[in-house]
Formats: sequence, structure tokens, C-alpha cells
Amino acid sequence: MKNCSCLKTLILLFAGFLSLFVRAEPSLGLPVEIVAKATPPAGAFPLVTTTHQAPLWYDTNDFPGVVRAIGDLQADIERVTSRKPVISPKQSSDTELVIIGTIGNSATIDALIASGKLDASDLKGKWESFVITTIAQPMAGVKNALVIAGSDKRGTIYGIYELSEQLGVSPWYWWADVPPKKRAQAYILPGRYASGEPVVRYRGIFLNDERPCLTEWTKEKFDGLNSKFYTKVFELLLRLRANYLWPAMWDNAFNEDDPLNPKLADEYGIVMGTSHHEPMDRSQQEWGRHKKEYGNAEWNYVSNKEGLLRFWADGIERNKSYENIFTLGMRGDGDLAMPDAGGLVANKNLIEQIMADQRAIISGHLDPDVKKVPQLWTLFSEVQKYYDAGLHVPDDVTVLFADDNIGDLRRLPTAEERKRSGGFGIYYHIDMHGGPFAYQWINTNPFPKISEQMYLAYEYGATRLWIVNVGDLKPLELPIEFFLRMAWNPAALTKDKISSYTRRWAERDFGSEHAAEIADIVSKYTKYNGWRKPELVKPETFSQLNYDESDRVEAAWREVVERAEKLYAILPPEQRDAFYQLVLHPAKASATVVEMNIEAGRNLLFAKQGRVSTNAVAARVRALFRQDRELTNYYNHKLAGGKWNHLMDQSHIGQYNWEPPVVDVMPAVSEVIPLAGAVHGVSVEGDISSWPEHYGDAILPLFDSFQPRRSYVDVYTMGMEPINYTIAAEQPWILLTKETTPHKDQRYWVEINWAKAPVGTSTGTITVSTYRGPLKVDVPVRKASAEQILAAKGRFASLGGPIAIAATAAKRSAVNGVSWEELPDYGRVPCALAIYPVTAAGVLPPEPAPTLKYPVYLSRAGNFEVTLVLNPVMNFVPDRGMRIAVAFDDQPSQVLDLFAEHPKAPFLARGIGMQIMRDYARDNARYLRSTHNLSSPGAHELVISMVDPGIVVQKIIINDRPLPESYFGPPESKLVE
Amino acid sequence: MKNCSCLKTLILLFAGFLSLFVRAEPSLGLPVEIVAKATPPAGAFPLVTTTHQAPLWYDTNDFPGVVRAIGDLQADIERVTSRKPVISPKQSSDTELVIIGTIGNSATIDALIASGKLDASDLKGKWESFVITTIAQPMAGVKNALVIAGSDKRGTIYGIYELSEQLGVSPWYWWADVPPKKRAQAYILPGRYASGEPVVRYRGIFLNDERPCLTEWTKEKFDGLNSKFYTKVFELLLRLRANYLWPAMWDNAFNEDDPLNPKLADEYGIVMGTSHHEPMDRSQQEWGRHKKEYGNAEWNYVSNKEGLLRFWADGIERNKSYENIFTLGMRGDGDLAMPDAGGLVANKNLIEQIMADQRAIISGHLDPDVKKVPQLWTLFSEVQKYYDAGLHVPDDVTVLFADDNIGDLRRLPTAEERKRSGGFGIYYHIDMHGGPFAYQWINTNPFPKISEQMYLAYEYGATRLWIVNVGDLKPLELPIEFFLRMAWNPAALTKDKISSYTRRWAERDFGSEHAAEIADIVSKYTKYNGWRKPELVKPETFSQLNYDESDRVEAAWREVVERAEKLYAILPPEQRDAFYQLVLHPAKASATVVEMNIEAGRNLLFAKQGRVSTNAVAARVRALFRQDRELTNYYNHKLAGGKWNHLMDQSHIGQYNWEPPVVDVMPAVSEVIPLAGAVHGVSVEGDISSWPEHYGDAILPLFDSFQPRRSYVDVYTMGMEPINYTIAAEQPWILLTKETTPHKDQRYWVEINWAKAPVGTSTGTITVSTYRGPLKVDVPVRKASAEQILAAKGRFASLGGPIAIAATAAKRSAVNGVSWEELPDYGRVPCALAIYPVTAAGVLPPEPAPTLKYPVYLSRAGNFEVTLVLNPVMNFVPDRGMRIAVAFDDQPSQVLDLFAEHPKAPFLARGIGMQIMRDYARDNARYLRSTHNLSSPGAHELVISMVDPGIVVQKIIINDRPLPESYFGPPESKLVE
Repeated sequence: MKNCSCLKTLILLFAGFLSLFVRAEPSLGLPVEIVAKATPPAGAFPLVTTTHQAPLWYDTNDFPGVVRAIGDLQADIERVTSRKPVISPKQSSDTELVIIGTIGNSATIDALIASGKLDASDLKGKWESFVITTIAQPMAGVKNALVIAGSDKRGTIYGIYELSEQLGVSPWYWWADVPPKKRAQAYILPGRYASGEPVVRYRGIFLNDERPCLTEWTKEKFDGLNSKFYTKVFELLLRLRANYLWPAMWDNAFNEDDPLNPKLADEYGIVMGTSHHEPMDRSQQEWGRHKKEYGNAEWNYVSNKEGLLRFWADGIERNKSYENIFTLGMRGDGDLAMPDAGGLVANKNLIEQIMADQRAIISGHLDPDVKKVPQLWTLFSEVQKYYDAGLHVPDDVTVLFADDNIGDLRRLPTAEERKRSGGFGIYYHIDMHGGPFAYQWINTNPFPKISEQMYLAYEYGATRLWIVNVGDLKPLELPIEFFLRMAWNPAALTKDKISSYTRRWAERDFGSEHAAEIADIVSKYTKYNGWRKPELVKPETFSQLNYDESDRVEAAWREVVERAEKLYAILPPEQRDAFYQLVLHPAKASATVVEMNIEAGRNLLFAKQGRVSTNAVAARVRALFRQDRELTNYYNHKLAGGKWNHLMDQSHIGQYNWEPPVVDVMPAVSEVIPLAGAVHGVSVEGDISSWPEHYGDAILPLFDSFQPRRSYVDVYTMGMEPINYTIAAEQPWILLTKETTPHKDQRYWVEINWAKAPVGTSTGTITVSTYRGPLKVDVPVRKASAEQILAAKGRFASLGGPIAIAATAAKRSAVNGVSWEELPDYGRVPCALAIYPVTAAGVLPPEPAPTLKYPVYLSRAGNFEVTLVLNPVMNFVPDRGMRIAVAFDDQPSQVLDLFAEHPKAPFLARGIGMQIMRDYARDNARYLRSTHNLSSPGAHELVISMVDPGIVVQKIIINDRPLPESYFGPPESKLVE
Repeated sequence: MKNCSCLKTLILLFAGFLSLFVRAEPSLGLPVEIVAKATPPAGAFPLVTTTHQAPLWYDTNDFPGVVRAIGDLQADIERVTSRKPVISPKQSSDTELVIIGTIGNSATIDALIASGKLDASDLKGKWESFVITTIAQPMAGVKNALVIAGSDKRGTIYGIYELSEQLGVSPWYWWADVPPKKRAQAYILPGRYASGEPVVRYRGIFLNDERPCLTEWTKEKFDGLNSKFYTKVFELLLRLRANYLWPAMWDNAFNEDDPLNPKLADEYGIVMGTSHHEPMDRSQQEWGRHKKEYGNAEWNYVSNKEGLLRFWADGIERNKSYENIFTLGMRGDGDLAMPDAGGLVANKNLIEQIMADQRAIISGHLDPDVKKVPQLWTLFSEVQKYYDAGLHVPDDVTVLFADDNIGDLRRLPTAEERKRSGGFGIYYHIDMHGGPFAYQWINTNPFPKISEQMYLAYEYGATRLWIVNVGDLKPLELPIEFFLRMAWNPAALTKDKISSYTRRWAERDFGSEHAAEIADIVSKYTKYNGWRKPELVKPETFSQLNYDESDRVEAAWREVVERAEKLYAILPPEQRDAFYQLVLHPAKASATVVEMNIEAGRNLLFAKQGRVSTNAVAARVRALFRQDRELTNYYNHKLAGGKWNHLMDQSHIGQYNWEPPVVDVMPAVSEVIPLAGAVHGVSVEGDISSWPEHYGDAILPLFDSFQPRRSYVDVYTMGMEPINYTIAAEQPWILLTKETTPHKDQRYWVEINWAKAPVGTSTGTITVSTYRGPLKVDVPVRKASAEQILAAKGRFASLGGPIAIAATAAKRSAVNGVSWEELPDYGRVPCALAIYPVTAAGVLPPEPAPTLKYPVYLSRAGNFEVTLVLNPVMNFVPDRGMRIAVAFDDQPSQVLDLFAEHPKAPFLARGIGMQIMRDYARDNARYLRSTHNLSSPGAHELVISMVDPGIVVQKIIINDRPLPESYFGPPESKLVE
């Protein structure tokens, strides 16, 4: 059965594999290759040959940041070719040279434009754009030139780094030890390569919550968060075509800790900001250090207005010559809500006044036309409510909407709002220290989720500024780059393009040979971490009893780790450090934590069942706990010779509230003392009990001929001596298969030979016999009649249990160009569905809407519950919920609203709102349930209709009795053939 | 402050101690001593002298059971004196002899009565009565006789055993290895000692749920539950003046397993019955073995009436010559509810028909006047609902009400019901295998609870039959005897008499020297087990954070164990086995389980706080788990040379639903890996957090000058190296005291020097300084002003936190002879209060009612919640709840009903009723909460008024904000002086 056009992706991957040696390896900036393979075509520019390297020519009038970047290019060329080109502001005697410059700052570039030899149509007046092109005889004495021309300072710099990256220097060459790709010579393919303008004007990261990792690491390696450290960050950002930074601020003050910090940021070309709650380019730490110099030292605009205004004015004055975006507004001290000024209206009015006063300072110190100075106001946490209450933000100030701290956008601009000149931006999280829970340890951010949400931001016009909270920066290399690349051009990283992006990333950093495998490993480990962040996985998270859930999760993790370890073993030694930190460590460390918790859950179950193997499982939990520590130790002390010591210091096991655990705490495990003698126990799938002690019958879950599956009976020892027993099925249509798996004692798989089983409802028996007598295990079976088979053909069918359907199994309909489209690799499923265009207007039944139709067969009439498993979407469109409609057959559609029961539930509120918020956040999924009465058994059609765009449908469950507990619900059923 | 006249008890105990060598040691039957001390007074009968022993003379016409008991007396005399008297049916040549006989069966006794030498006024026509008396010259040739005369067979036997017990042979001499009290001679004090009639006609035990312990023990020692075993039980019952037995029936059939069983029961004098769900003297096992011989083999009266009637008739025929009480009615097979016959009315009618048919069998096979044959019908579990629905029970059939399986009576007869000739009985539990939870391991039954409940049964007239489920019999020696002694004469074991009973029991079995100490140890261990049964204590049961709760519980248990161990070490070797099984083992084994769980709770807390000591606490949990096993092993294998092997086989750790755990499971424990270096953590009372990591302030609970107490700050290491810190209070009125206790790292006790503290609300600071900087701990303090002290004088007062008041602190009022009386040692408190007489009519406000008045002082106005901590009473009076009234000052009383919110909540029902039922059952307490608005701060009076009798008030809590979690709530406050 084909339930996802992800097959296309697989085919592409496979094609990629076949074309290993012919494909280009462009950067993740330009989508085309500009560096020639071994045999350069005619007209290719000889950047480096076996005997020569073209000099790098620049204009002394160009920006120091451009000149500095040319130095990086020089170093990169040497890294790749072992030959170092000359850099010179003077034209050399070479007839083939590289000309690098910024329009208006480079006489040579301006001359080339004036002479018509350089087409500046996509440079002039453009933002951060570059062109890389070869020009024959650009000027006297030059036969051929490679020209890198920028529309502005960063445009030129991005062009320089584009060349570096295409030559084989990863943006992560230093930050993740990606080895440069060695080559003896480098020819640039003839042609003209233009970057175009970025879609999002300001693209940046926020180094946040920098203790313990970043603080301890920078202390050891740089002696603090000084310019030696920050220039490493600036360079990385520029190589990723970013331009914006909120510096670390927990215990640090960027502008004070090292006066070179802001100076070098400006020189490198990085626009500085301060975090959402630090107005006017002054860090919270600065206030702490200097508040006694400002009025009554209170961070309270009502009681200390004069002091605060002076504090802010001093900040503006200090940094006014640098490129900044000024944060306006005010929250409480220390990233907390502001003290109450007398209710919502009073607070709103106060914030309006504060902003007006702040703008007066900017106007006085920086530019009388305050509108020319970039400013922003961030709607983090409780601040959004003032905006929702109508707070007036000056039109030119950028309004920054925030996500829910776990990557789901809380608010997007309406068409009316989009008209404001300051535009909108997004403050996003891929790391969090705060509610609903901290996740600061490892990368838990699947690309499909970032893409799906940030594509909404793009389509809804929140494109002035994107900034992402990256914690300690490492180990979030993958989502940082993805987010920043997407900010440059969101349309290039939409749902269908993620897979090829990941493969291109793997190719760039590890070469073609294993790219598909590496891409798949990182897709999988992030997907699995997206099921539930490892910090939140507990012994009880995945069901030990139902659907083989914990076994399946464990097996999935083990497989991805095995593949990563296998690759690690065969990779060239110089790639291993990079592979370890980008691929193997996050996969294995995440797997270790999840598996440890699953084993701890198994330990608690086995203890209840009295299995002697309880103790062996406890030992395995302890071993995995030690393994976690060993992985941390390797990362900190051995990896790259200890270069990254402390960056894996984050505790991550035993989180019990929003905070990270104080130290790593092993999940609690039980022990048993074996009984004397030979004592056996028997347990069955779905039941915690142990027989013969348990009072009540041993009954396997129902076998349904429409949903063939296997079940199991476990036999185990509870005593110190070997047990003696026989096990047998009493009906010939029950198949028993003995299997020994570690920790599971003696398992017998039970299957039904459907050809032999009687039609209708029957109960078979498996008997376990010991000296204590026979124990009967009931095997309830339902086999469809020929009539039922006929009626169920081509449908999802059940004779008793639930039906679970992959969303993509639908017959889809479109209305007026609005349709359900596939999101490959999204969430819990291989492929999910969502409405496109994402800005489509809501439609309420009976208006015609795009539908998903599922043919089902139910052997009984009555009430059925339908559960939709959805994305953890927020109600980002104001004044309406987030709705979808469900119906059976021709019954009227039930319109369900994810926010119906808590329409006012404020973000991070206490009480029920908070509980719902936390549940969806932990599950990284939302659920919608509806009840439908079917008056007759037989064939039916389940119809799901769009109401609002934004909802992603992953899976549908239909059931008529309570489902056994599990995290994912029943596995997807198959169509009856 | 005197809050309990338990002081009286203490004084009595102390007096007992002083009079060690002068006090008598009567049996627990007769309350007076009949055996003379060393120097016999004139006229004392020389039973045994250093040279001679009086022969035992009986009539050959007497009952064989009497003759057999005389043999026991002979052996007992030898056990005590090492001299064996002659037994003879012929008058010997001795001039001083013992005459034993039953009125009507002993010619000698009858002659003594006829001659006027024996007063038979309390024998003739009496039930089970005896007289022990000395008679001078009773007949020719006899100078002096000791006469034991019985009104009937058991009367004589009880008289015989009374003498044995008074001579120094405990009823438990075999069953608990209590050594006979050696003496060289025995003189019987002159006088006449009459037993009187028992209040309860049938007094018995039910050997139930006999696997694994009783089954395995009897298999090893007796080769099964045969007459060799049962005669041991019969003898014990007779020595305890019991007369009734329901035999073990899990895998056993009393009448079939050994045909001598019923024969010897009758001969010994034991009336046999069958358990509540085994009608017509046929065991469930017999049906299992023989059902194929009876109709369609279905245990279903609708489908197999003829078969069942024949099955029952065969049982009646078999046992008709023995003394029996026949169980009527029918439940489902295997102690389950009967299959539904078509709703409540249909089921009720069916049961009526079944009983009529059963009585027809009795009438046909046994006695045409069926009313002369004792019959009963038990309202166990769901059966009560048929009775409540009006099912007609023949007037002569005894109706047996049941408790809630944990010792709380569910129903008692009304005045109208009491008129029926068959009367009422009680089926009680001190051991349970079933809902709400199993408790089969150890004695968890405090005497005051049994006394309080069975006194209700007595006063409400349910006195025809008392039977108690005793599981495997051992180790429930204490409550078995208490229950049976109380059945003989409930008025002798009322609330005020329990303490002296316990001391007399200890004197009888262990002598005077340590009786008070032993009595106190068994009172304490059962009281503590009454707080919560050890099987139900979990790591989270007792608060690790608040009120030092877990520490206090642990200390209480440790103290009682230490005292028991100290005694064990100094007791004479021959007493040690008895002391071990009756005192030391139950105390220490219970303590071990509770302490293990508390330590496991501490482990989980310490893990969350990151303490390195987490691992040491985990090791302690493991050690206690091993200790539990070692105690079991000693009991089974070493105690009394292995005599009781298997009787301690019951699993008891890790119960997670109603069933006992399959095997003992150690509470799960966590581990931590210490951090590198010297890392410290700080925690404070009431907060799970660990600083400096935790985001938020460290704040101690409020110090209130009206309720002086201490609090604490813990400093501990989280790393591998020693920590260096200083700690200091910043205010002179904060007192810091360093203390090192095991597992608690470095604790600093914090107290307030109230003389120096400022009046009003203030916040002091304790600073913990390390190389990571200072950590401030807030010390919030409220000190009463002189005005407040004046207003609060003589009251329970609070400046902020809750007030907890011992119920007994009340000023009590009585109305029309109805009053609040003290229940010493009841429940969670030293002394509780309840309404007497317990049959008083309910009074509803504004009718005048007995009140409890508590003077309080509250420093603020507003809403206050009052929580009454009560006994786990059931609504045993039909058609009303269980009510009490609460008010402040002159406000109208709020009438609160324990059953208001679940009036129909059936016993053991599913859903909310079940939850409530389980919670009260686990807590062994109920709570009633009410809210009261006080419009002004200052002095108030809390008034609690009786509505219905039956409620026991233990403690009152007044609070105006949520209480921190704990099991017991805040400790009792003191009056302001």
C-alpha cells in the first residue's frame, strides 16, 4: 500500500546514491555548483592550479569587514589547496585574478559596472546581495577575472564565504571540526551567479541560558565571553549569511565585558541587539552592576523613571556608532513579568509611555528621524496580552511575535496588520530554559517542524526579522543552519525540499559517499527526539504492555545508533570528530536516555510480575546510565582533543519540573529477591498481571482477521531454580513460536492461522502446564465471514478493536485551489497532511471545503469516537480558534476547535490552561476527539474537512471502547485487500 | 497541658509496675485470681503440693469432649508443676480431689446441687457457663474438693481451661510457644468463681485465604489440613472460650479432606459452619470436585436447581449429627457475585426462593421444626444490597452483617429489626484477601479500633454470632484473642479497659516484670500499623518535606523496635520464641517495611536535589530490603526450631493493586553520579528544590511566635570533592545549630530567639557562602504584639499558618446524658472523642447537642477551612448518613455528612465511590471539610456539635490557605500561655 509520496523522496535519495560521483556539491547558499570538478571546462577561472594561485584584489576603501573576510578566503583557499593566494589592494601583475568589492566602496567594481562588464541589476540598491561571476578582460592587463561583487558590506562578505563554502570549507569547519575538502586545484565555472536578496531582512541567533556549558567552555578556552570568542560567532553567522545577534546575558554584559565586542561586531558586519527584555541596548547585567548610579536603583518605571531614562540614554550614546536594532518596551527585572501598575489598561498605557520616552532618547542621541533607526518590541510570554489588548506600537517599530518556546508560533500578523512599515518578526526557540519545560541538552528539532512553522511566518508576512534562541550554540549546529538558511529564502526549504537539503548538508560536510545514509540518520534521530524530548521521556512514557510500543521505540533507536556506529567505524579518521558531534553523539546519547527510561519502565513492570529478570533489567538501566556519562565524558574530554570541554555539561536525566535536573538522576529501579525453588510466572500482552498468582483470567487481546497481528505469552522464572513447564495451543489454528530475547525471559509469539480458524467469534486456549497444574490463557478470535470480507474490501476494517489510519491514506479533494498537501517525514508519521495555501481563508460547513475521505468497515453499529492526531499548533490567527470538521457518510459535519474549551487559556497560564499547554507541549501533538453515532454496521466513509489552515493531520483513530494506554495509540491498520 | 485522661492509664501502668510482686495474674477470662501465691491462705485447696497432686474425678456419662479437656488439664498441671495428677471416673481414696462435670451428665455434680452444696443458680439453663468453687466435705470421705461444674459441655470445658490458664498455661502455649509458668505447688483460693453466660452466643474464627502460609505450613507439619491440624485449632478456640469455626476453603474441603475433621470438631465442642458463600455445610471445593455428579454441573440455581438441591441435601445428611450452623443463600462460584438473574428484584426473589428450598431440605433431613436449627445468611459485599432492597429473611435465620473488610461495620440492626428471633451477627476482618486491598502479612489491628467498632455491634444488638476472618491464624494471635474475649463480654473490653487488658495479657504470657513495657510495645506497633498498613506505605506516603513527618514516623518506629530488641536481649531464653513472634517480629518487620519506604522516598528526594548521599540512602533501602528477608527467614527457619516454617511466607512489599504482590519488590531507588569537583547544594524545609541551581528564592516556612518550632537548612555535596562554605545568620535573633545526622548531610536547625525578634512581620536571612558566591535563605518571621498576646492567651493561635488542635483539648458539654467521651490511644492521636451512648438518637441543629468548644485566635479575618480528622466510620444506620456540625462563635452550625456526596456509593463500587472508599480505607481515617467566614480577626470559638453518634473526632485543622502536602497534617498546636 502506498500511503505517502515520500516514496518520491526515497527514489530521489536512491538516485542520489547512484550519482555519487557525478553530482555537484553546491553550498547550502547557492543551489548551483560553481567550482569545477577535476577536469575544468573551457573558460573556467583558474583560482588555484598545481602551480599557481590567483591573487585576491580589493579596494582599500572597502569595508574593513570585507577586507577581513578576504583574509578568511585566503585561509580557506590554503585549507583546501595548501596554497595561499596573495591578498593585495593593488592590481598585481597576474593576468588572472580575483576582484572583490562592494558597490560604492570599490573603484574597480564601480568601474566594471560603469563599463558594462558587470551587470549590477541585482546589486544596485539591493540588500545584502552578491554576484560571483567570471569576466574576460575586465581591464587592461587582465585576461580573466573572478569577480565577487556585493551590493553592500554583507553582500560582499556573503559572496566571499559562498566561494569558501563551494571550495570545500564548511561554515562549521571550526565550530564542528568539519575537515576542509582537499583538492589540488580549483577552477571556477564560467557564468554569473547571483544571490538575490534575502527574504528576511534580519536573521540571527540568541545565545541564551549560557550556564553551565557555554560559560565554562568559554572560560576555559577564551577566558570569558570576550571578543576572542565572539569573533568566532560573528564569522560563523556570516558564513551562514546571518547578520544579527542577541549576545549571552545571564551573567554577561556584551558591551562591557570586552569593549572590543561591539566594535568588532560592527566591523565584522553583525547587527547587535539585546534580548527581548533588555531595552535600549543595555543588558540586564549592566543594570545589576550600575543600578545604584541611576536614581533609586529600582527597575520600575513608576518609581524610577528618571534613573531608567538616563540608564538607557547612556546605552544609546555608547553604541550609537554601531549597527544596532534597539529593543523597546520593558519587562520586569530578570526575564520576569513587569510589576503590576494597576491592571491591564494601566500596564498597557505605561508600556506605551515607556516606548515613547525611549524613542525620544533615540531621536535625541542617534537620529532626529527616529523612524530611520531599527527598533523592535518583542511579544514574549505575558507581553503578548498587552498587544492583544490594543497597545499602540509605533508604525515603524518591528513587532516580534514569539513561539510557545517549543517551536509553535503563537501569533502571526493579519492582512490588516501587515501594512505597518516596521513589519513583523519571529522570536523562535530550538532550546529553552523556562516554561513549559527546559530542553538545553541536545538537538531535538526536526527540520519538518521548523519548516512547517516558519513557512507560516513567511506566508503570513512576518519576515522583517527572525531570531532563534540557540542556547549554548552547540550542539544545535543543524537547526541553527536550517533556520538561518530558511530565513534567507523560506521558499527554498519548504516541506518537499527538506529531504534534499539534508542530503546536500551531509554531502557538503561529509562528501557524497555516505551522504544519503547520514542524512537519514540525522532525520531519524531528530524525528525520534521530536516524538518526545529525551528530557521528558520517563519510564512510563512508552507502553510496556500495549502495541509492543516500548519495544518498537527501543528498536527504532537501536537501529539508528547501529547505523551511525557502523559509519563512524569506516569514515576517514579526519571526519570522525565532525561525524561524532553532528551525527553519532546526538543519536546515541538521545537513544541512551530513551532506552534507559524504557528499560526502567520494563524493570518496574517485571518487578510487579515477580520476574527474576527484574534484576538484570535494573543492571541494564545502571549500565545505560553509565553509558550516558561516558558519552558526555568523551564529548567533553576526548572529542577533538578536548576542544569542546564543558559543552556537554548540561544535566538531562531526571527532569521533574520545568527546570533541568540539578544533576543527572538515574530512573529509579526496583529489585526482587528470587523465591526459593522452581517457581514460574506467566504474563500476557496487555496485562500487568502475573499468573497463576493473579486472581482473574489470562486473556490475550482480541485477534481480528481484518487486522492480522501477533501477540505473546511470556513464561519466566520467579525462583532460584530452573522451571519446568510445557506450553501448547489447544486449537490447531493457534500458532505458537518460541523466541528468546534478552530480558524478556521466554516469549511465545502467538499468531492465528486464519485459513484454519473458524468464522465468527471464538475463544482458543493456550495451556501452560507445570507441577502446580495447568494455566489457561484465553485466545479470543474474530474471523470475518465471506460476506464481511466482501463488504470490507478496500476499506479499513475492524471486527472489534480500534482502527488507526495514516492521514495520507485519504482520497483528497481540493476546492478553489485550496488542497490537502503532503508533509513528508512530519511528526509521528512517515507523512502528514496540511492545507495549502496556508493563508487560505477559513471555511465553515456547509461551505464546500477540501476533504479527506477514508473508507472504513465497522462490524457493529453504535457510538464511535474519532481521534485526530494533529500537530501542536497554536491559535496564531487572532479572534478565532483552530478548527477542523469531522463526519461519517452524509451526517452533518462536527466542527471541532482545538481551542474551544480554553479559548482564553493564556500561554503558560496556571491551572487547566497550563495543563493542556504542557500536555500538548510534552507530546508535541494535539488531539481532537468527536463522537459519532452509526445506526448500522458495515461500510462507512469518514470525512475530514478543512475549516482553518494551520492544522497538520497525522493519524486518525476510530474506536468504540476505551483504548489501552499508550503514547502513540494503535499502529496504523492496513486496507482489506 | 492535659489533653487526655490517658494519664490515668499511665498511672495505672506505673502502679502495676510497683506492684509487680503482689499483683495477681488472672486469666483473660475470669478477672480475678483463683490460684494462690506462694503462701496459700487458710482453706485454700491443695491442687498440687510438693508431695502430692489431687486426682481429677469425672463421670463416665459426661461428654467425651469434657473428658478430653480433663486430659489437657492433667497435662497442663504437669507442664506447670512437673507433677501429673491421676484422672479417674472413680472416686479415689484421696480426701482432697477435683470434681469436674456437666449438669445433667455428671451424677456427682447433680448430687452436689441436689444436696445444696453447689449453688447452680448461674448454671441451670445457662449457655456455656461454669462455676469453679471449693467445697468442704462435699461427700463422704472427701475433706475438700475443687469443683468445676459446667452448665453444658462447653461450660465445663471453659471451666477446665480457666483453671489451666490461671495455673500458668497460656491458651497460646502451643500456638505461640508461651512457656508454662513453673511452680512447685498450686493452691486454689477458697471461694466461688462463676463465668456467667457469654454475651455473644457463637464466637468464632474463619481460617481464610490460606495460601501460601497455612497451606505450606500444614503440608510440612501435618501433611495437610487434617484432624491433626484442626484439633490444634479446636483446642485453641476452646481455651479462648470460642465455639465456632469456618474452616479453610481455598483448596480444602473440611468434611472430605479428613472424615475425622467434623467428627472431632463435634467431639471437642466446636460448632462448624461454612464461609458466607458456601451454603448448606458444603465447601466450594466439594462442588468443584463433585459437580459432575449433580445435574448439569453449573453453579446456577436457574439452570441447575435440581442438582444443587441434591448437592446440598447430601451435605445436610452427612453432617446432620454434628453441631452446625447452616449457611443459607447463594453467591456466585468462587466468592464472586451471583450471575445476574434479571435485575435487582429478580435476584432478590431468586435468593428468597433458594433459602426457602434450602430450609425445606433442613426440615426434611434434620429437624421438622426448621426454626430449631441454627442458620445464618451473610451480607458480604454485594449481598447486602438485596437485604437493603427488602429481601425477606425468615425470622429465625441469623442475619450476618459484614464490615468493610478493614474492620469498619457497614450496617447494624435498627431497633425494629432487632425484634427478629434469629438475631444478628457480625462477620469481621483482621486479615483480608480482596478489596479494597489485601492485608495478609502481619497484625495491623489496634485493639482500640476493634473495641470501638465491636462495641457498636454490642450496643446495637448484633450479638448472636461474631466471626472474624483471621487468614492463616498466625501471626494474628493478639487480635484473635481480643476479638474472642470481647465476644464473651463486650462491656469488659470497652475503650477504658483496653490498656489494662493489654497489660494483663502481657503479664499472663510473659510475667509481671516487663508486662507494662511489652503492653506498650504491642500497643504502639499496632497503633503505627493502624496509621497505614505496611503493605500500603509507599515512598511518597509520609512527607519528606513538611512537618518532619517522615523523620517523626521513622523515629517512632525505631524507638519501638529498640525497646523490643532491648527486652529480647534480657528475657529468659525460654520466653524468647514467644516474645519474638508476639512482640519483636511484628514490631521490627513492620518497622523495616515502613522505614524502607521512607528511605526510598528520601532517596527520590535527595536524587532530585542532587545530593551525593542519594546513593548511600539507596544502599540503606537495599539493606532494609535484605533485613526484611532475614526477618522472614528467621521466623520460618530458626524460630522455635523451624516449627512455624512457611507461616511468614506472605509477600508484602510492592503491593500495587488490591492483590498482594507476586513477590516482594524493593521500592525503586535512584542513583546519581557525583559531579566533578567541589559542588555544594542547599535545600530548605518544605521545598524540593536545590540551590543555587534552582531559579527562585530559598524561603523557610513562616516562623510564628504563637507556635514556636524549629526549621532547617541542609547543606550537602553534589560533587566528588569536599565542599567549603560558611553559613551564618544575619540577624542576632536567628539561632543556627549544626547537627550531623546520617543520610541528611549537614543540617542546620533554625530557631528564633523570640525575645530578641522584632514585633510584627519581618524577614531575616541566613547566608551560605561559597566560592560561587553567597546564597540567601529568607527567614520569614511573625512575632505577636503585646496586644495580640493578651488577646490570644489561653487560645490556639496563629499569625499566619494553620492551627491544628487535638480533639481532646475541647471544653465539652453533655445534653440529656449524651456526651463526648474519651477513646484512649485511638487512631492517630493519644486520645480521641466520640459520643456515648453510641445508640443515642441523632440531633439536628438547632436542637441542643453535646458540643466541643475550642478557643482560637486568628490574626486575620476572611475565609477559613476547618478539617475534621475522623475515624473511617461507615454509615451503619440505614437511611441516614453520618453527620456532625461545625460553627464558629454564634454562626449557624454547618451540618456535614460524611456520605453526603456519595450517598449511594455502594461498598466496593467502581468509580468515584470506590476511590473515596479506597482513600479512607488506606488512610484508616475520614475527613470532613467546611469553610467559614470570619469578619474580624482576633478571638473566636470553634464549636463542633454532635449530630449522629458513631463519629470519632481525632484532630481539627484550621487553615486559610492550602496546606503543604503531608499524611497527618500539621502537628497539634499548643495553647498560648
